[in-house]
Amino acid sequence: MYVSNLECAKCGATYESEKIIQLCKCGAPLLVRYHFNRIKAALKKESLLSREPTLWRYREFLPVKKEENIVSLAEGMIPLIRLKNLGPNVGIPKLFLKDEGLIPTGTFKARGAAVGVSRAKELGVKVLAMPTNGNADGSWAAYCAAAAIKVVIVMPQVAPSINRKECAIAGAKLFLVNGLISDAGKIVSRAIAEQGWYDASTLKEPYHIEGKKTMGLEIAEQFGWHVPDVIIYPTGGGVGLIGIYKALKELQQIGWISEKLPLLVVVQAAGCAPIVKAWEEKKKESEFWQNAHTIAFGITVPKAIGDFLVLEALYDTNGCAVAVPDEDILKAQQMLASNEGVFVCPEGAATLSAAFKLAESGWIKNEDKVVLLNTGTGLKYPDTVQTEPPILEPDDNLPRI
Amino acid sequence: MYVSNLECAKCGATYESEKIIQLCKCGAPLLVRYHFNRIKAALKKESLLSREPTLWRYREFLPVKKEENIVSLAEGMIPLIRLKNLGPNVGIPKLFLKDEGLIPTGTFKARGAAVGVSRAKELGVKVLAMPTNGNADGSWAAYCAAAAIKVVIVMPQVAPSINRKECAIAGAKLFLVNGLISDAGKIVSRAIAEQGWYDASTLKEPYHIEGKKTMGLEIAEQFGWHVPDVIIYPTGGGVGLIGIYKALKELQQIGWISEKLPLLVVVQAAGCAPIVKAWEEKKKESEFWQNAHTIAFGITVPKAIGDFLVLEALYDTNGCAVAVPDEDILKAQQMLASNEGVFVCPEGAATLSAAFKLAESGWIKNEDKVVLLNTGTGLKYPDTVQTEPPILEPDDNLPRI
Repeated sequence: MYVSNLECAKCGATYESEKIIQLCKCGAPLLVRYHFNRIKAALKKESLLSREPTLWRYREFLPVKKEENIVSLAEGMIPLIRLKNLGPNVGIPKLFLKDEGLIPTGTFKARGAAVGVSRAKELGVKVLAMPTNGNADGSWAAYCAAAAIKVVIVMPQVAPSINRKECAIAGAKLFLVNGLISDAGKIVSRAIAEQGWYDASTLKEPYHIEGKKTMGLEIAEQFGWHVPDVIIYPTGGGVGLIGIYKALKELQQIGWISEKLPLLVVVQAAGCAPIVKAWEEKKKESEFWQNAHTIAFGITVPKAIGDFLVLEALYDTNGCAVAVPDEDILKAQQMLASNEGVFVCPEGAATLSAAFKLAESGWIKNEDKVVLLNTGTGLKYPDTVQTEPPILEPDDNLPRI
Repeated sequence: MYVSNLECAKCGATYESEKIIQLCKCGAPLLVRYHFNRIKAALKKESLLSREPTLWRYREFLPVKKEENIVSLAEGMIPLIRLKNLGPNVGIPKLFLKDEGLIPTGTFKARGAAVGVSRAKELGVKVLAMPTNGNADGSWAAYCAAAAIKVVIVMPQVAPSINRKECAIAGAKLFLVNGLISDAGKIVSRAIAEQGWYDASTLKEPYHIEGKKTMGLEIAEQFGWHVPDVIIYPTGGGVGLIGIYKALKELQQIGWISEKLPLLVVVQAAGCAPIVKAWEEKKKESEFWQNAHTIAFGITVPKAIGDFLVLEALYDTNGCAVAVPDEDILKAQQMLASNEGVFVCPEGAATLSAAFKLAESGWIKNEDKVVLLNTGTGLKYPDTVQTEPPILEPDDNLPRI
């Protein structure tokens, strides 16, 4: 176990890590800190080669102490796909996709849930609760089922039915609210205060970000510890991007990668782009985005609790933030499927739209190695595809192709 | 390139492998044969350790000659999940699940499509066609998109809409037929005869089975080249089981595993169990199953073209065949989700029902290592889950848990 302590991401206050703590006294999220000198002494990067292809190959960088507490559904270590057909056409011959649709529950949320739930189990949590808009719930419900932790989930009545079904079959205590995600959040907060449950809301516990950080560890390993030039990430709550940035800084501390970091790029939907606006205005925090609306509902977050960390990652890496309209997102989704065979979620498709834009403007150079993060499978968003194929009778013949 | 030739699985006739051949003159499927002495000289099993976690780590056992022809979407090398909660409860403490829901397109069909399409590309195929009931179409459509091969798909009008959408977004030429899969098959056959397309129907080309065989290679490697005692497989067309059996025989030929093979078990739905019936009657082939019906539509195959190969695998390994009713399948699906966090398809759930049955009868022993194969993600079968969660108003409170 290599954790040293928990540290407030805003005020720097430190806490010991063996007690259940949700947020800093100042209200900001806590981050897990490690003894990197000890990790360095215990682990050579070459030893990773013979480890199992899951995110637990990086166990020294993760906060779970005892192996028996690990709850694993074979998550992580997703190989990069080279976009051989689209890349050269858009002026980025070295364009790669990390397809998180291939992990359990079909979304990158499984990384956070795997590590978050394993650590909750280790800390003796019996009931955890969370409000969601969809996706996170299915992942947490699945890992809690495997960990025998009770999970209470509240989601808006309008959330996609597939998420509801994932929760139900996993045995989660599921409630719908005739209202918004913010209403769900208030209901959960009241119940937590009354009943003493563990709060698994975004960034209100320090461990799920550790799971998401493994995306950054994997990308570094997959490029032979020479990081790519650009990583483009669809950003709602931003925990994935914060996690990738944290991973890269930790790899620098341990000396496995050099000083050069990839330029980190935030993509948001034009209908909900608070971080893009804040970045354009060179601010350190975002403002609440009124009347947020986009088909990419996974990134419909009007004000993220970790916005200041996302912006810090952009400023520190000389990255940027891009907003793309829904029609571009749907077009990119169709391009990825019909040219590369990958059926991504709208959030993932947005990264391709952003890559187009940045290559066109010259911000991305022809020789750059660029990684797009697809955060989930298109199978969970069937309504984004409309089709009316011709109907034949048994005696009909097919046309000439 | 280690392929020696193609060989008829029934009459033993041989064909050279560099031309497009679909079936043997006798009408039976062709299998790919290899120069195992050459593979043995070229590859040590230890060298696999440092290879990428996809099925292409076994490239010497696969029929694609040139790396440039490989079409990969990061498929394969799915870690086994230990069913820690269910296993001990049903008298099989060493119970494992291989969750093929985690590969591209959410189904094991992607393995067949990856290798089948890569080899079709290598052979210069420009248009391929297939009839399907769902699942295979989405996989072939995806890989053909990546390979820039045109694909014509005909499926019954009643096939699930998600499969239709996968094909559409990947740019496949999709047709529905007001009829059964057999009607779709006849339409495709007529068009192939007229237009000279490549026939990608089940077992009508020799290469997709090579992709499915990688499930067997992976299981052997994951158990450290000591095979498990029992492998339970949900069987429709049976290509997965034939592939696993072929893989194990090939590993014996190369000397990587010993003489002991796992007992192979076929699971079918009680509403469509032609292979179970044939096995019970000790026959070498199955008879057409009248009025086939089950919720596990992926294994609704009344008469499989490779039935004789499936039965051969059962007899040779002293395996068995089990039929399970739909209500048991749904119960097993719910048990896997709520106890282990895995949302499997009904076909995969059937393997758990079979394991229960076989453990209860003593056919599976308490000390046996048993692997269940889940062939696809439950996300593609949303209708198997019905739920009506309570609806709250924003001011409501959650009940005590």
